[in-house]
Amino acid sequence: MRATFIYGAGDVRVISVPDPVIQQPADAVVRIVRACICGSDLHPYHSMPVTPDGRSIGHECIGVVEDTGADVTSVQKGDLVIVPFAWSDGTCDFCREGLQTSCRHGGFWNADGVGGGQAEAVRVPLADGTLVAAPVEADSPLIPSLLTLSDVYGTGYHAAIKANVNPQTSVTVIGDGAVGLMAVLSARQLGAEQIILMGRHSARTDLGREFGATDVVADRGEEGIAKVRDLTGGDGTHVVVEAVGYMPAYEQAIGVVRAGGVISRVGVPQYENAPVGFGSLFGRNITLTGGPAPARAYIETLMPGILTGQVDPGRVFDREVTLDQTPEGYQDMDARRALKVLIRP
Amino acid sequence: MRATFIYGAGDVRVISVPDPVIQQPADAVVRIVRACICGSDLHPYHSMPVTPDGRSIGHECIGVVEDTGADVTSVQKGDLVIVPFAWSDGTCDFCREGLQTSCRHGGFWNADGVGGGQAEAVRVPLADGTLVAAPVEADSPLIPSLLTLSDVYGTGYHAAIKANVNPQTSVTVIGDGAVGLMAVLSARQLGAEQIILMGRHSARTDLGREFGATDVVADRGEEGIAKVRDLTGGDGTHVVVEAVGYMPAYEQAIGVVRAGGVISRVGVPQYENAPVGFGSLFGRNITLTGGPAPARAYIETLMPGILTGQVDPGRVFDREVTLDQTPEGYQDMDARRALKVLIRP
Repeated sequence: MRATFIYGAGDVRVISVPDPVIQQPADAVVRIVRACICGSDLHPYHSMPVTPDGRSIGHECIGVVEDTGADVTSVQKGDLVIVPFAWSDGTCDFCREGLQTSCRHGGFWNADGVGGGQAEAVRVPLADGTLVAAPVEADSPLIPSLLTLSDVYGTGYHAAIKANVNPQTSVTVIGDGAVGLMAVLSARQLGAEQIILMGRHSARTDLGREFGATDVVADRGEEGIAKVRDLTGGDGTHVVVEAVGYMPAYEQAIGVVRAGGVISRVGVPQYENAPVGFGSLFGRNITLTGGPAPARAYIETLMPGILTGQVDPGRVFDREVTLDQTPEGYQDMDARRALKVLIRP
Repeated sequence: MRATFIYGAGDVRVISVPDPVIQQPADAVVRIVRACICGSDLHPYHSMPVTPDGRSIGHECIGVVEDTGADVTSVQKGDLVIVPFAWSDGTCDFCREGLQTSCRHGGFWNADGVGGGQAEAVRVPLADGTLVAAPVEADSPLIPSLLTLSDVYGTGYHAAIKANVNPQTSVTVIGDGAVGLMAVLSARQLGAEQIILMGRHSARTDLGREFGATDVVADRGEEGIAKVRDLTGGDGTHVVVEAVGYMPAYEQAIGVVRAGGVISRVGVPQYENAPVGFGSLFGRNITLTGGPAPARAYIETLMPGILTGQVDPGRVFDREVTLDQTPEGYQDMDARRALKVLIRP
């Protein structure tokens, strides 16, 4: 089959690899119907050292079960299933607590002999704990929205949940990428009445308004902070979702968070050290939370809104490519010509 | 009257100053019955530059109302009152949310023309919002325990509350100072069943066991982390209270916190930058919280346990000095000859 590999910064190729097969009784093999490119895929696309053997890439997909191991009971051949961005047993204490990204027996795609999601098919370990069947056909117009449950929608929702967004909390979302827009949608679903989206790509922030943003601030840095404070009586917001991952966004988050508030990070930090002392977090009792979203935890919660048409998170996809065109999809996302690229194997 | 001033590192003196008087209609003047020395007082005692005029010091006291301004209604002359470590109006949105340390009209002792708590008397701005009367006489044996409500007990409780300690959470407390011991007591009150106290002063950790610690780990650094992990099936605890404020304690907290858990800081950080990236907080969904405790917020919650004798937090005081002996009290706390020093003006 064909699968997407990355060989270093800027070097993504679609190559031929052996078809995945059942290796363990708990495995399933899923034939991929749609995959997509994640903002976090752009990190190795920017900085990965040259790697002659390459490694597979992609961790968001939706597909049809093609084969199952002897122990699999929750899904069967022919089911359309959402493949969350980590695989997990569903039974350990972390999974029961909803932290499937820390599953005691789980793992991540593109490691330990498991392939990636930007491919024709993928072997799914621990299929019973990992996969969630969706009651639609593979040609359903809901497929793009259901695909967002594999990562980006759950990640935006995770940011809002970790920050305890509710009808009493005002929210700033930093970043108008797909995760930021999903955080806007999630904050709205959780009842937030003021949602300020910080971003400067008007096509994206316009979509953010449709998802629930009440205000858009295009400025960055001190000017952006001043505008958010103007919009909040000088205080900043109770919650700030940081959906970028770079230090300026972190600093901006500190600038716009209200005393006693929460900064919730879901942009993978591209830094290790950051200000957390008296002058940044401690003195004003600011909480810092977030991390890799246990997307699996939120699928059952979020899927009904998609199936009933209440929400349409699939609108974040503004470009569709074939699997062979995946390298061009990376170029388009990297150049910000595309918000999020859907891949049709 | 006499009051304690600090003039630089290691230089604490008791001097004569004018008696405090009512300046604003919302003021009260409180004659101090007992004060004490805080671990955070040791920070300027270690590092304050030479300051020829000095500044007053002390922010924990209990006393009797001596005079009130025309607008004061909640306390009256003769009331025994707890003076929390920040003054606040009690009516603004932050106060109503229980974050009196961010009160819109409040402030802190030893600044803006308001004196300190290690003195014979103190002027209390916004007395209605700040002071809480206790139904005991000035010679009650409960005075030391009630005094802990002005800061140290509320600070330990704040750490536990911010981390959502409950019967399902295991807890590590780093630091066997008075705040750490109060965090142990608070975690126990909130139902935690496993409470690991990290400290190496056996007199203090013995008291910690009486307050509710189930395990004591005397080792620090990697060895201490390994022992806590041994005690928790390899996982660390859901909550870590960091009650020290130095970087090694922060690093230790990261080492002993369970994935998805919370590090709650109440030791004033003596650093500004710290690890928060994928390898420290983000990758395991660790939340970092805490800050200066709004001691005022917790007084009504915690006082009944003291009045009924259910808890005896005043046991953290292991030395009593007169006001004139306050400099010796600093020496004793600095040399760790005393856990916490009570001052009798």
